[in-house]
Amino acid sequence: MSLESLNKLMLPAIEKELKRIISQLNEPHTRHFHEMLAYHMGWAGEGSGAEAAGKRIRPLLVLLTFAASSRMSGKAETEDREWTTALPAAACIELIHNFSLVHDDIQDNSDLRRGRPTVWKKWGMPQAVNVGDVLFILAHIALLEIQKAFKPEKAQLAEAIINEACLALSCGQFMDISYEKRNDLAVEDYWPMISGKTAALLSACTQVGATLGGADGSARESYRNFGHYLGLAFQVHDDYLGIWGDSALTGKSTESDLVAGKKTLPILHGLAKHGAFAKRWAEGSIQSDEVGNLSEQLTMEGVKLFTEEATDQMTDLAIQSLRAAEPKGEAGEALFELSKVLLGRKA
Amino acid sequence: MSLESLNKLMLPAIEKELKRIISQLNEPHTRHFHEMLAYHMGWAGEGSGAEAAGKRIRPLLVLLTFAASSRMSGKAETEDREWTTALPAAACIELIHNFSLVHDDIQDNSDLRRGRPTVWKKWGMPQAVNVGDVLFILAHIALLEIQKAFKPEKAQLAEAIINEACLALSCGQFMDISYEKRNDLAVEDYWPMISGKTAALLSACTQVGATLGGADGSARESYRNFGHYLGLAFQVHDDYLGIWGDSALTGKSTESDLVAGKKTLPILHGLAKHGAFAKRWAEGSIQSDEVGNLSEQLTMEGVKLFTEEATDQMTDLAIQSLRAAEPKGEAGEALFELSKVLLGRKA
Repeated sequence: MSLESLNKLMLPAIEKELKRIISQLNEPHTRHFHEMLAYHMGWAGEGSGAEAAGKRIRPLLVLLTFAASSRMSGKAETEDREWTTALPAAACIELIHNFSLVHDDIQDNSDLRRGRPTVWKKWGMPQAVNVGDVLFILAHIALLEIQKAFKPEKAQLAEAIINEACLALSCGQFMDISYEKRNDLAVEDYWPMISGKTAALLSACTQVGATLGGADGSARESYRNFGHYLGLAFQVHDDYLGIWGDSALTGKSTESDLVAGKKTLPILHGLAKHGAFAKRWAEGSIQSDEVGNLSEQLTMEGVKLFTEEATDQMTDLAIQSLRAAEPKGEAGEALFELSKVLLGRKA
Repeated sequence: MSLESLNKLMLPAIEKELKRIISQLNEPHTRHFHEMLAYHMGWAGEGSGAEAAGKRIRPLLVLLTFAASSRMSGKAETEDREWTTALPAAACIELIHNFSLVHDDIQDNSDLRRGRPTVWKKWGMPQAVNVGDVLFILAHIALLEIQKAFKPEKAQLAEAIINEACLALSCGQFMDISYEKRNDLAVEDYWPMISGKTAALLSACTQVGATLGGADGSARESYRNFGHYLGLAFQVHDDYLGIWGDSALTGKSTESDLVAGKKTLPILHGLAKHGAFAKRWAEGSIQSDEVGNLSEQLTMEGVKLFTEEATDQMTDLAIQSLRAAEPKGEAGEALFELSKVLLGRKA
């Protein structure tokens, strides 16, 4: 059973679980609150649909890791359906992800998310802060449900993993915001930031799936590393695209991290070179008509190669970690496949 | 042992527990993040001290209810110190309260909190959203610790109570924000809003204390009602002060809910009278020089008496519920005393 088939099986179950949890708000006095969440999740309002909902990568990772580390996983997942017991945990992490997106859009002053107006843009900042908060609260309500299906030790461990990931996420967010105004940053400051902002939650997905699925300590550690490096590889590749991707080079100027002034890996590495790029950066905001020349300058200074190599390294570490975890059955194969999809040709 | 003596015993323990939990952020890359939290909690920065920290009513309620429903509570609390096992739960609720304060200040655009600049005023809105978020995350990390000291059933029940209270809090906040723009509100819309915004967390304090302390089902229900009505009485009295309190009548105009245009109980009741007050309200924003006349008008329309009676009713219900819970020992006496302090002469 390929990733595609498992996707077809698991995605509707994830969506149903998310809707069930969020429907708690569908009460007379909070109906409009429920509408805001249904809009953000991609289920309602203008532009709703699969694209507005996003890919649900995180809950899928939880379920696949769960199935791949469960004793039952040799059997066809269609039959035993054991993975459905991990649905509340999968939904929990997706809700946490969406809580962070809603607040991130406020913090970054972003007007659009997946091509649609953001929650704060539609209903104002105060209500959007609240929408993010309630998504996080609902995540914890979902999480408590795993205590019914799993033994206390497993459930507590899963809960601790998720809490720690949230702490790392928030610390990463703190660093990201504080870096905007700092000009003293080195490449070393980059890794703790994206470890929190991007890798922590992906790592929680694979750890929680493995923990609930019954993987042993060593396999759990390998799954943890798999999620962590998958997150780092994904972020570094995203940073690459932010300078050398098609839309960054040719599209709207706002697509280039050079114009946005983000402290991404290639930019921090470029600054550390103290060459022509660093000199230009120090002179102030970069305009969109400079994007072509400056990205070429970075390439000449070896930054493009460095970024590609960093992505390759992180991708290799992710795949090695996944191999070490010895994921079982069709779900295990699907995990390798999912890594390839996420990391493009790099995996 | 009086409330004052128990206060002297418990407050330093609460503060120490809160500092221990928040110190998790005191790491090289997040030291400044830790500073922001220490500032908000009243421990650091300009104007720090007991007044900036607040009264810690909620954790105190948890510990007193715990001690008053515990089998051990006949003994002097100084000796057995059993109540210290409930400290993580007490700290958890205080952190949730502070998470809601930090976000509330952003949502209400408030410059000052307990006489000091608010977090968003000092460090900007994006970082303040994050400070609120991390307080909530730390609350859940603290909560997980009660699983070490209590049996799974007790710990899970406490966790469920807290999650439900947070959901109610967020729904109350949604209503409060959405009410600002509505002109079709009745007195019936008031109660669900303050049940969430004010009463839910106070009710969680007494429920969690009673649950962890080992109270039986009927006592737990009574403690729940005690916290609930305490919250309602407190809020209605606060609404009273917002119109007839000294600072509302004579002080700065911003102290009067009439000028702020808040949909409080007396205002909604006044609007339902369809008298001179309602007529003036419909004509637009109220200016500070109208405050004296309009509050007198409300008194003449019977709204002052109605509000006083509502406070008395809620206070009576709170005290009756507390009596029904049969709180034990000195902690029990302290709970009656605390209610009196909180509700002024009304209790």
